[in-house]
Amino acid sequence: MNVLIINCGSSSLKYQLINMTNEQVLAKGLGERIGIEGSVLTHQPEGKDKVVIQKPMKDHKVALEILLGMLVDEEHGVIDSMDEISAVGHRVVHAGEKFASSVLITDEVMNALKECIDLAPLHNPPNIMGVEACQEILPNVPMVGVFDTAFHQSMPEEAYIYPIPYEYYDKYKVRKYGFHGTSHKFVSQRAAEILDKPIETLKIITCHLGNGASIAAIKDGKSIETSMGFTPLEGLAMGTRSGDIDPAIVTFLMEKEGMTSQEVNDILNKKSGVLGISGVSSDFRDIEGAAEEGNKRAQLALDVFNYRVRTTIGAYAAAMGGVDVIVFTAGLGENSASNRQEICKGLEFFGAEIDEEKNNIRGKEAIVSQENSKVKIMVIPTNEELMIARDTKRIVGLE
Amino acid sequence: MNVLIINCGSSSLKYQLINMTNEQVLAKGLGERIGIEGSVLTHQPEGKDKVVIQKPMKDHKVALEILLGMLVDEEHGVIDSMDEISAVGHRVVHAGEKFASSVLITDEVMNALKECIDLAPLHNPPNIMGVEACQEILPNVPMVGVFDTAFHQSMPEEAYIYPIPYEYYDKYKVRKYGFHGTSHKFVSQRAAEILDKPIETLKIITCHLGNGASIAAIKDGKSIETSMGFTPLEGLAMGTRSGDIDPAIVTFLMEKEGMTSQEVNDILNKKSGVLGISGVSSDFRDIEGAAEEGNKRAQLALDVFNYRVRTTIGAYAAAMGGVDVIVFTAGLGENSASNRQEICKGLEFFGAEIDEEKNNIRGKEAIVSQENSKVKIMVIPTNEELMIARDTKRIVGLE
Repeated sequence: MNVLIINCGSSSLKYQLINMTNEQVLAKGLGERIGIEGSVLTHQPEGKDKVVIQKPMKDHKVALEILLGMLVDEEHGVIDSMDEISAVGHRVVHAGEKFASSVLITDEVMNALKECIDLAPLHNPPNIMGVEACQEILPNVPMVGVFDTAFHQSMPEEAYIYPIPYEYYDKYKVRKYGFHGTSHKFVSQRAAEILDKPIETLKIITCHLGNGASIAAIKDGKSIETSMGFTPLEGLAMGTRSGDIDPAIVTFLMEKEGMTSQEVNDILNKKSGVLGISGVSSDFRDIEGAAEEGNKRAQLALDVFNYRVRTTIGAYAAAMGGVDVIVFTAGLGENSASNRQEICKGLEFFGAEIDEEKNNIRGKEAIVSQENSKVKIMVIPTNEELMIARDTKRIVGLE
Repeated sequence: MNVLIINCGSSSLKYQLINMTNEQVLAKGLGERIGIEGSVLTHQPEGKDKVVIQKPMKDHKVALEILLGMLVDEEHGVIDSMDEISAVGHRVVHAGEKFASSVLITDEVMNALKECIDLAPLHNPPNIMGVEACQEILPNVPMVGVFDTAFHQSMPEEAYIYPIPYEYYDKYKVRKYGFHGTSHKFVSQRAAEILDKPIETLKIITCHLGNGASIAAIKDGKSIETSMGFTPLEGLAMGTRSGDIDPAIVTFLMEKEGMTSQEVNDILNKKSGVLGISGVSSDFRDIEGAAEEGNKRAQLALDVFNYRVRTTIGAYAAAMGGVDVIVFTAGLGENSASNRQEICKGLEFFGAEIDEEKNNIRGKEAIVSQENSKVKIMVIPTNEELMIARDTKRIVGLE
């Protein structure tokens, strides 16, 4: 009972094959430059050597055929035949208001996802292509869609309705959706497990801090607020994304710089965030290095990032009427002790006290708050693929 | 020793004459439709009947001549001659990064304010016109500029730098400025006086909630954060302004609706906020009325407004590392017990406990938190004119 996890970008395809009996990864890999010259697929079977395949891949279907071939390959494979793939779980970015949880993919589901293309023009088309390619090659294998937006569908109206004319919600479904839902769900459930408490009794703030970053407020196991919005541009300062700014800046820059709406959108999505402030890099390791060498704008970028995470934690505690657990996850959240330390500075007033020594860890599960801290502060590595595999297993009814 | 306070809008002129010996208002009034057909000036001398003067006023200078005439008028006046006006205090919206406090107006100051026109194209030109008209008519009277932005100039870099390319700060001074500074300063100082504590020992969150609304975090008497930003559009949901939204919505709407940047800016400034959500009105009394009659979108507008104030209070407590006092002021903040009650719901976790009975007041100074509430919650009517008059008196060195 193996589940294949597929995550398609516009020119990429990430995959993992997971044995759901023991939740072990059998193989994983990444296809890149699909549909572009120089296509390459990197395949990493568990316990065997990595393989790099350079071959033209004109579309996701060709990439998928190559990766399936590798999975059953005599030398580099991990299973004997495709029959050993019991189900496929697809990561899909945007399900709009259609789905509040993962679902078995049917024609109806595919139509619903196509209706959401307007809301995620860059992400949903390759996600849909990935599903269609899989359906062609594995016509008898059940497929499950797992959506980045689904977990946040429990948000109340006052959190998701924007203070703009209501007709734009009616007409275009302009509202807050939120993203990274699979990750926020995974780490919040894991936090409850580690603390050995029913998740229904906890107020949890999950900080998914990577190049894309978002925070969620999770009350009784349900997301009631999150920092990304209509698109993944809203909220925190990120690697290259601005997050929240005065909306008047968008039109001010267009007028001053003679930019089109597409151009200003590109600036805000690709040249802003800590890259924009520091001028150094979108990678926090580079920025930390530069800051240590005395680069003031690099230090400012870190300060702005940490400050905005800290104030968002305060806002979400107020949204829930308190907080019991703060979880850090994803690249930066799991690995940067200094960012966690800075973020928590000033949260003692509601009982969140980080322990500098315990916090000195990277990439592993740990409680990093002081013994007597009323609010538990935790580091929990995220695992979106495993979450997708579990949902897939549950939905197709694998024993 | 009387001080005249002048506040010029594009077609309006508000004024007060204050006796600074006892801080009593001698007269106040409003000129409207200046430069437009149907100009009118309403003059209210203290202890006398209101006068309405309908006369063409082609510019602010004409309006000013009429109001000065009224001040010394035998029947409607309150002083014997213009010599009794010792100084004029001008409210000016935007001083950019030039001034962190009120200043005596000199040619240099006027040039600096003209340089800020780009930052406040709707507000600074009429403010400047008002000063120039006063200088012509009262050439020997000292004038003081009191700026909405000045009090917030103490914000640290991590609060005022946006996560966008730094060059826009260098080139156009795109940064957070904040507004309503005179009001935030006035009520925070008054809170310290009422509590009989040095302001340097307090962490105060001031909520200026009117048709325009903003919150400030005031630590040691200095503003370290505020919700309005580069323009007064950012932050809370307001009467007609959106406040914070996903910046991608700006360009999404432009594309979908074929709007220019000016048109979308108009929508976000004039047709959004609680008006946009409710579809009823920008006036909270109308919205409350509709909500009571069962209008769900009116109730939603109130919920969104209150929710955003509540989460911003949480964010600012985190920014300061705690909070000792929460102050409500301005139209809604002073008068709406129900909004204050709703806003404070859920803030008990850091020790802010409102007292439903004490909170049942309108428009007067009061401590409305429970006796043992760690955080004091207060209602303090704002008085920007008096603050301007005090600054003016201090700066021109009146005894």
